[in-house]
Amino acid sequence: MEQSKSLPVTDEQLAQYFPNLPSGPLDRYRKNVKFDWRRMKLIYENLNTISLKNEIWTFMENHPLFKYTDASLTLDEERHITVKRMYAIFNEDFTPYEKIFEDPKRFQAEAEAIFMFDSSLAVKLSLTFRLFFNSIQGNGRSHHFEILDDLKDGKIGGCFALTEVSHGSNAKGMRTTATYLPDKKQFVLNSPDFEAAKFWVGCLGKCATHAILYAKLISKGKDHGLHTFVVPIRDPKTLKPYPGVIVGDIGEKIGLNGVDNGFVIFDNYHVPKEAALDKLGGVDDDGNYRTPFKDPSKRFGAAMGILSGGRVHITSIITTYLQKAIVIAIRYSGVRKQFGPENSTEELPVLEYQQQQIRLLPYLAATYAMKVFSCWLGETHMNMVIANIMGGNDELAAQRGVEMHALSSAAKPALGWTARDGIQHCREACGGHGYLKAAGIGDIRNDNDANCTYEGENSLLVQQASNWLLGVWARRRQLTADDSPLGTLGFLDNVDQLLQETCPWNTIEDIIEPTNIIHMYKWLTAYTLKSTYDKVAKLKSAGRDNFQAKNESQAYNAVALSVVYGENYVLNNFYSTVKNFPDAACRNVLLRLVSLYGAFILEKQLATLYIGGYFSGTQGLLLREGILRLCAQVTPDAVALVDTLAPPDWCLKSVLGKSDGEAYKHIQSSVMTYPGALERPHWWRDVVYWRSYTPAKL
Amino acid sequence: MEQSKSLPVTDEQLAQYFPNLPSGPLDRYRKNVKFDWRRMKLIYENLNTISLKNEIWTFMENHPLFKYTDASLTLDEERHITVKRMYAIFNEDFTPYEKIFEDPKRFQAEAEAIFMFDSSLAVKLSLTFRLFFNSIQGNGRSHHFEILDDLKDGKIGGCFALTEVSHGSNAKGMRTTATYLPDKKQFVLNSPDFEAAKFWVGCLGKCATHAILYAKLISKGKDHGLHTFVVPIRDPKTLKPYPGVIVGDIGEKIGLNGVDNGFVIFDNYHVPKEAALDKLGGVDDDGNYRTPFKDPSKRFGAAMGILSGGRVHITSIITTYLQKAIVIAIRYSGVRKQFGPENSTEELPVLEYQQQQIRLLPYLAATYAMKVFSCWLGETHMNMVIANIMGGNDELAAQRGVEMHALSSAAKPALGWTARDGIQHCREACGGHGYLKAAGIGDIRNDNDANCTYEGENSLLVQQASNWLLGVWARRRQLTADDSPLGTLGFLDNVDQLLQETCPWNTIEDIIEPTNIIHMYKWLTAYTLKSTYDKVAKLKSAGRDNFQAKNESQAYNAVALSVVYGENYVLNNFYSTVKNFPDAACRNVLLRLVSLYGAFILEKQLATLYIGGYFSGTQGLLLREGILRLCAQVTPDAVALVDTLAPPDWCLKSVLGKSDGEAYKHIQSSVMTYPGALERPHWWRDVVYWRSYTPAKL
Repeated sequence: MEQSKSLPVTDEQLAQYFPNLPSGPLDRYRKNVKFDWRRMKLIYENLNTISLKNEIWTFMENHPLFKYTDASLTLDEERHITVKRMYAIFNEDFTPYEKIFEDPKRFQAEAEAIFMFDSSLAVKLSLTFRLFFNSIQGNGRSHHFEILDDLKDGKIGGCFALTEVSHGSNAKGMRTTATYLPDKKQFVLNSPDFEAAKFWVGCLGKCATHAILYAKLISKGKDHGLHTFVVPIRDPKTLKPYPGVIVGDIGEKIGLNGVDNGFVIFDNYHVPKEAALDKLGGVDDDGNYRTPFKDPSKRFGAAMGILSGGRVHITSIITTYLQKAIVIAIRYSGVRKQFGPENSTEELPVLEYQQQQIRLLPYLAATYAMKVFSCWLGETHMNMVIANIMGGNDELAAQRGVEMHALSSAAKPALGWTARDGIQHCREACGGHGYLKAAGIGDIRNDNDANCTYEGENSLLVQQASNWLLGVWARRRQLTADDSPLGTLGFLDNVDQLLQETCPWNTIEDIIEPTNIIHMYKWLTAYTLKSTYDKVAKLKSAGRDNFQAKNESQAYNAVALSVVYGENYVLNNFYSTVKNFPDAACRNVLLRLVSLYGAFILEKQLATLYIGGYFSGTQGLLLREGILRLCAQVTPDAVALVDTLAPPDWCLKSVLGKSDGEAYKHIQSSVMTYPGALERPHWWRDVVYWRSYTPAKL
Repeated sequence: MEQSKSLPVTDEQLAQYFPNLPSGPLDRYRKNVKFDWRRMKLIYENLNTISLKNEIWTFMENHPLFKYTDASLTLDEERHITVKRMYAIFNEDFTPYEKIFEDPKRFQAEAEAIFMFDSSLAVKLSLTFRLFFNSIQGNGRSHHFEILDDLKDGKIGGCFALTEVSHGSNAKGMRTTATYLPDKKQFVLNSPDFEAAKFWVGCLGKCATHAILYAKLISKGKDHGLHTFVVPIRDPKTLKPYPGVIVGDIGEKIGLNGVDNGFVIFDNYHVPKEAALDKLGGVDDDGNYRTPFKDPSKRFGAAMGILSGGRVHITSIITTYLQKAIVIAIRYSGVRKQFGPENSTEELPVLEYQQQQIRLLPYLAATYAMKVFSCWLGETHMNMVIANIMGGNDELAAQRGVEMHALSSAAKPALGWTARDGIQHCREACGGHGYLKAAGIGDIRNDNDANCTYEGENSLLVQQASNWLLGVWARRRQLTADDSPLGTLGFLDNVDQLLQETCPWNTIEDIIEPTNIIHMYKWLTAYTLKSTYDKVAKLKSAGRDNFQAKNESQAYNAVALSVVYGENYVLNNFYSTVKNFPDAACRNVLLRLVSLYGAFILEKQLATLYIGGYFSGTQGLLLREGILRLCAQVTPDAVALVDTLAPPDWCLKSVLGKSDGEAYKHIQSSVMTYPGALERPHWWRDVVYWRSYTPAKL
């Protein structure tokens, strides 16, 4: 698949978008760096995305609605401001469809710019408009499209109602019904009980006027399984729910509290027949079921297919969160000084300590790898969507869809867990001040946490990839290039021979050489697939049915397989992108990050390299020493590398992570101006006169 | 050291404190359990602690101040209610000192009961009263003790001011000064700049009237290093700060927001000479320095020694957090059903899935191990404190103090990281509903996070243990029993021979046998110490000074060493406690938990077992298969095992974790009654008429 061509970008253009960073304590690191931190951005950006982000950020920076307050908002205040910001952004229409067709990278770049500022805002915008639009366009017919005009005008707002209280991952277990009444040409919607209430529906709590609803279509007494409907929920003129619709807010969450997640219960709620989004299957006026699919499971698969874009999108969101956290932690580590060498009066920045390096720098490398990968994945996916809209629907496109489904189902959990752990390391690496809300990492962690769960609970979602891979392994000797248009099965080249190998490298230099690491990881991927396949086969020959055999081969096997398969592709994608990067100074630094990322993910599976007999003796020790060496080598460049990744200071919103490195001054300013910081509390009498509200003791 | 003898406890007594659990969906698991979940409590409780917790919980349950609200409080509201609760508890005086002397386990039991309800409350109570009391008693002289009478009467409240804005871990870098003025017989306190402001001081933000202050004592132009002072901050009658004291609140944190952490800047603030807590060293009236210590570094060590109790306390806090999370996650996993076997219409509880088991059950085993250990540690430490107060101060006591310092410095980080990871697994294992604030796990995670940092940032604190162990290794052939009164050095018995061994076991049964696992872990501990020692030695012979050699041997070496040393002791302590537990049915289940915990912590270091040549071939595979087998065996007992660990439902405060297992009903009730849940937002016009606040587009 062709990726967008990067036009040459001049130094002047870059300097125009990215002014010099303020001088200060971080100069110590910046002044000795040999590469251009602005040019480094081009490993994942192009001029279109840079310019779009700049446009969005400039708009926000100058708009009063986007000013942050120091003190936390109440839940209601947070919901309110997020809605207003959403419409302010919507009104600007930064990325009309034709612009996305022109450069598909714009789609993700817009979301990134907004996520950098506020996750809830980005989620709300995406759910209210994009996902609703795509669902109707993907599942609806021409008579549905007029509703899209109202959406484009902002007259209505959507939401996506699939999950129920007692069913999420098992979509086939949903129990909401849509029963067709041929005499009225209506569907009647019912939630049998609270456990079947649609739940967790983003934007439904307070705002949505319409829902994309997944319900079991019942006609003539027959249950045809899950189908989609577009259902009016609230009057767009008053926001009052329609009779028969019990709708509400599910309350406070761990994070993302600007998003009003809601629930809805249908009580004999009648909607016209046209509510059915029946392009892929539905009833005729008489209630007879019609579908273009011969095999009903294919219809279900196609209807669910709309969801894969969500996972692609999440790999980018995850990366954005880790990106913010690593910027904060590394800048702060460059200015926070503690202890120092013997016979020295000056203390060292904590970034100079090995233990700080090992906690942060592998995640810095991972951030780059994930950034490059998620930009590629987003663009590739958008190109597929565009090709589908254009009517390209051949066999290869279908196979590409299958591989994209597997890759995104592996990558979202694998990278999600990396981000989760990386953000936590960043939090701890910032020590006490990292625990301040004003440091920003707590909110990042709480918002990111949702990514482990929504759009496929990670531990379950991985099965989408592992099951596909197990099928691939069975026919590994018959594979052709058409089986893997995205190239994720490259690790199966000469796999039988590969699995006979042992690791031939016995020096640190050899072990951390990028192509060698890639080869080792290739072995690991193949071995993990083979051993998972063998375990399933062994369980089956011991009498387990398919369900049991799969269930009993998840831990250490299928789950690891998906992670390794996803990370293998991320590593290869990173290397091949870096290898072709034209700027030599940047490329040298990036190659070191390839090594560090590769060594880092390999070390996580080190025991398996020994169990499989690929490593022996002290090769594992060399790998660990190699990681430490790479960390030490990356340290001098680390601050500049996060300058590349950093959004503008006002958007990062962290007292510890600002580009001037004056963390203590920003703490001072934040603390001194916090509402009521220096005041006596209004309840001071309850401290002094506490006996007034406690019973006297005899 | 003698531990408190457990008196026999009758079934009737247990039934009196712990009524039958409500019947419901969890019956499926409870009805087949072979052990008594109440009696199981005696592995870490005794009748005193059970009765004390019951007394505290009954008080809270019946007191209006301890009613929880569904909606989050503002920062100010949270501070306010926490203060009122603190005085309500203080007023009851549940654990007077004589009761602690009678049974030292009571001290920790009281804190546990309060932590189970609310962490901020427990922290505030401990800082305002206990730590202040201990600091004055430990460092003060008789003329200081009258202030303790005011404290006991609740007329004043304390805080502990050590950390500064730019110095935390490096206590010697503190810059606040206390300069003695002999003519006035006063000290003048100064903060040279904001970076030297005392910061993060718990209870200082709004409430404290007095601070234990760490400042550099300067007399006659000489800096005598860090000393402690008791300093008036606010007028106890008005809560207004004294002139020369700039004191305020540091604002919102990631968690623990009921605690008013504060900062203070001293601007030529004069205090009388008696402010110096000078038992361990100080100036006479003329400003001449006097100390009972010949070696000034010993005085510093003794002054810092007061802090070791904090780390002991934190191992118990950490355990309490993990305990709550694991109760919630396992009960919910026992009732949440999703998917099911082939040809079955009924879905399975997610607890039946291998991947859910591997995420939760090793942490269930860890919770038991940590609970047994932290109760032992708390009691042992309290016995040491009591012995010191009684005047026992011989060589053995000193050595015990050293070993306690090392053990607590290793255990707090090791167990803290286990709790951190376990809580996160619990969050994810609860899927979408686990992301509800009402599930309770988000707050647990946010509160627990602080434990990784305060009282010694984990990654740094571990050096207190590893440095001691490196010294021990050098004289390993001269060690006597006196070197290790607590027995943490047991892994060094016959160590040279031990390190020659390879793992002799080659079946799953042998690999997971408790005494075999303990032996393998013993090898691992010895090997990790030896290889860290060798690495430091190698770096030194390559020309590194001590500072550099230590710095460059942290990752994979010294840090792992401390963790392994701490966990080795936890494992041994768990096994020896379990082995002697009189109830056979409980003991059988507990032995399985010993195996699971041991195999779990061993698997985390699996690569090192291969690198060191102890494991070879597929022994690692057997270990992993053993963990899966143990998980499957523990599953039927898991619900009853968390019934043992659970506080009362109202105290657990989780819609997912209540003892009746009716998670969906509690979600329904929580959601339907959440303030404003079903209402149209008051800002609905900003949704409908959004064009009113966005500029028209041409």
